[in-house]
Amino acid sequence: MAGPLSGIRVLDLTRALAGPFATMILGDLGAEVIKVERAGEGDNTRGVGPFLGDGYSSYYLSVNRSKRSVTLNLAAPEGKELLLKLAKSSDVLVENFVPGTMAKFGLDYPVIQTHNPAIIYAAVSGFGQSGPYATRPALDIVVQGMGGIKSNTGEPGGGPVRVGASVGDIAASLYCAIGILAALQERVVSGKGQMLDVSMLESQIAIQENPFARYFATGEVPERLGTRHPLNTPFQAFETKDDWIVVGITGPEAWPLFCAAIERVDLLNDERLTSGWLRSQRRAELEPIIAKAMRLKTTAEWLAELIALDIPCGPVNTLDKVVDDPQVVARGAITEIPHPVLGNIKAINTPIRLSRTPAIVDQPAPDLGQHTDEVLKDLLELSEQAITELREKEIIKSRDSRAYRYTRFYLGKRSPPSP
Amino acid sequence: MAGPLSGIRVLDLTRALAGPFATMILGDLGAEVIKVERAGEGDNTRGVGPFLGDGYSSYYLSVNRSKRSVTLNLAAPEGKELLLKLAKSSDVLVENFVPGTMAKFGLDYPVIQTHNPAIIYAAVSGFGQSGPYATRPALDIVVQGMGGIKSNTGEPGGGPVRVGASVGDIAASLYCAIGILAALQERVVSGKGQMLDVSMLESQIAIQENPFARYFATGEVPERLGTRHPLNTPFQAFETKDDWIVVGITGPEAWPLFCAAIERVDLLNDERLTSGWLRSQRRAELEPIIAKAMRLKTTAEWLAELIALDIPCGPVNTLDKVVDDPQVVARGAITEIPHPVLGNIKAINTPIRLSRTPAIVDQPAPDLGQHTDEVLKDLLELSEQAITELREKEIIKSRDSRAYRYTRFYLGKRSPPSP
Repeated sequence: MAGPLSGIRVLDLTRALAGPFATMILGDLGAEVIKVERAGEGDNTRGVGPFLGDGYSSYYLSVNRSKRSVTLNLAAPEGKELLLKLAKSSDVLVENFVPGTMAKFGLDYPVIQTHNPAIIYAAVSGFGQSGPYATRPALDIVVQGMGGIKSNTGEPGGGPVRVGASVGDIAASLYCAIGILAALQERVVSGKGQMLDVSMLESQIAIQENPFARYFATGEVPERLGTRHPLNTPFQAFETKDDWIVVGITGPEAWPLFCAAIERVDLLNDERLTSGWLRSQRRAELEPIIAKAMRLKTTAEWLAELIALDIPCGPVNTLDKVVDDPQVVARGAITEIPHPVLGNIKAINTPIRLSRTPAIVDQPAPDLGQHTDEVLKDLLELSEQAITELREKEIIKSRDSRAYRYTRFYLGKRSPPSP
Repeated sequence: MAGPLSGIRVLDLTRALAGPFATMILGDLGAEVIKVERAGEGDNTRGVGPFLGDGYSSYYLSVNRSKRSVTLNLAAPEGKELLLKLAKSSDVLVENFVPGTMAKFGLDYPVIQTHNPAIIYAAVSGFGQSGPYATRPALDIVVQGMGGIKSNTGEPGGGPVRVGASVGDIAASLYCAIGILAALQERVVSGKGQMLDVSMLESQIAIQENPFARYFATGEVPERLGTRHPLNTPFQAFETKDDWIVVGITGPEAWPLFCAAIERVDLLNDERLTSGWLRSQRRAELEPIIAKAMRLKTTAEWLAELIALDIPCGPVNTLDKVVDDPQVVARGAITEIPHPVLGNIKAINTPIRLSRTPAIVDQPAPDLGQHTDEVLKDLLELSEQAITELREKEIIKSRDSRAYRYTRFYLGKRSPPSP
């Protein structure tokens, strides 16, 4: 059974994270993703540790499954020619170069479009294809800083804190996937392609809907709040006898039950505590009362008690606990992908669960250029001879001792490669 | 010009955040979104402050634009009947009730499917439709705790920190939108609908690809790292003379330039510092050197200098600075939506920029039941008489003095409503 995007071909020129995470989602959903990597070196994340086995980057592996790898030197006329031919037979092209790079290659949207008017050309960039910062390079950390999320995350009185996941990249990846699929849907009606321009900065802003809505409404700049939510109390983590617990009280039913659980039914007499919004106005009084109560029992004791009352709560899991959580296990949220060299490697399953045409996560990230020959033969109908010539000219370059040494250098086992 | 999803009708039974954020994205992209709200009360976020004007929730307004509002009592047979008729003429149904709720209404997927086999039925829930926690209520904060992101976010040695945006909800919203669009794409080929099951917990896990990949590779549980990234140095925020700055050095070109900028070219002699991965191994020595240098100039001075060198960097913006940032302004990332009562209200623009059929953000969030009559007349061809009867039976209930007083109560201007 093939995934829902079976029959859609994605030409994937992306590297690092924001682009590859988007094309991985499309690949998991059954699209045929052809990842075009720099001849010889490939995606630079191939050199980022920690490594599995003999130099397999866990970073690269984690965001490039469900794809095939083809090498191509886009700076050479023959490489450009091949790319245009691949674009001609693709439904989608995705790139996340700094804006202007594809134009330098002579491969920007106006060019691609003349070869394939029905293609969806998606560009992910730090700041978008226009505006004063368009050509600036960006990274997750830069966008987390500029987009405001770092300023909202952290302890009261402390410094800004990076979100412990690459949300600067990944928000853009998710919006990119949505934009591509929306454009494909539109193409069903119109038969026409278009360009999609997604910026990490705007995506970062978009996922902060609530902090921005509060700022627009009140003019007050959101502050760092530690573990809590600004609009509700309790809606945060508390220390227990042995660990932490998160508790969130929203509906009117939960508050009396929670007061009973912490043996403070007296609080129910106070009508200024009857909604989360009202309680958040009196947080300074209320939080110490709750914090004191929560320290009296262990996390496991509290969870048993509060779950029985249908009060939203949970532990603060470290990742080892997440992996072993009964729900995570029951749902198969962590899966394994067979890899020809590394054996079964652990991977995060897709959270997109479709009943009739499920996404399938079973193809490991490819070796550099692993599929160059088959793609050139099958899609572009090149002969063995033609492929050999491309290899001699280094237009394609799949196995490369320098790249290998480079990886080993990162591993600290060899001296750095000579320039 | 209509958006790319023009012609797609979404029946939206969602409330709070994870569901409404997903349907807002579809609405921005041109889908016709009919939000079905509880007769009389509506989405509970209508009661969450801060408020604009006379009781307009900024929370509700921020995630329910691009939709129409219809009230319906789903517990009554007539309400259920009308819902089924609406489902019959819709392409997509989205709900984010606790699993089992729609079955109690007699409106779960097996029922909906018999009335409309081509519908995409999307359910967003805390933990998914199956597994031991399926029927537990969840909230953003619970999922941030259970999914591990709180454990990764915060200062070294400090407590867990909530991400300053509702990523527990919003990651699920984005995956939900992707799943719906993928299923629509598949339907073009098969003509068939299906069920989509997206959980907040799995979505939360999925966006932590890098922490999980590191954990799987090394067995080391990721720790809280303050502002920095675990795989690279420098890739973090530093204090300057007057504020903070984020700097990220990844490619091989940037490190020598950065060393020159901080007047420490001597570091270039150390070949164990030549990659981000290697530098992160020697972070303890390196960070104090960089931190000391960064304190010598203001953020503005450093930005001018480092941007000229093409080094990825930026300020740590609070939201007021984000809104005024020249790039944000140039791109129109913050927009205004005309509201019939409140005038122009500020809103975050969609980050999905399509060239030919752009998303359009110009319809404000609706009043409760604002479109009940027009939807019942136009879509279901009900008569004035029939609508009046439904209103008398409180199957539909658009303007409601109790809900109004309830809102006022939240505002603290009136006493609480009698039960």
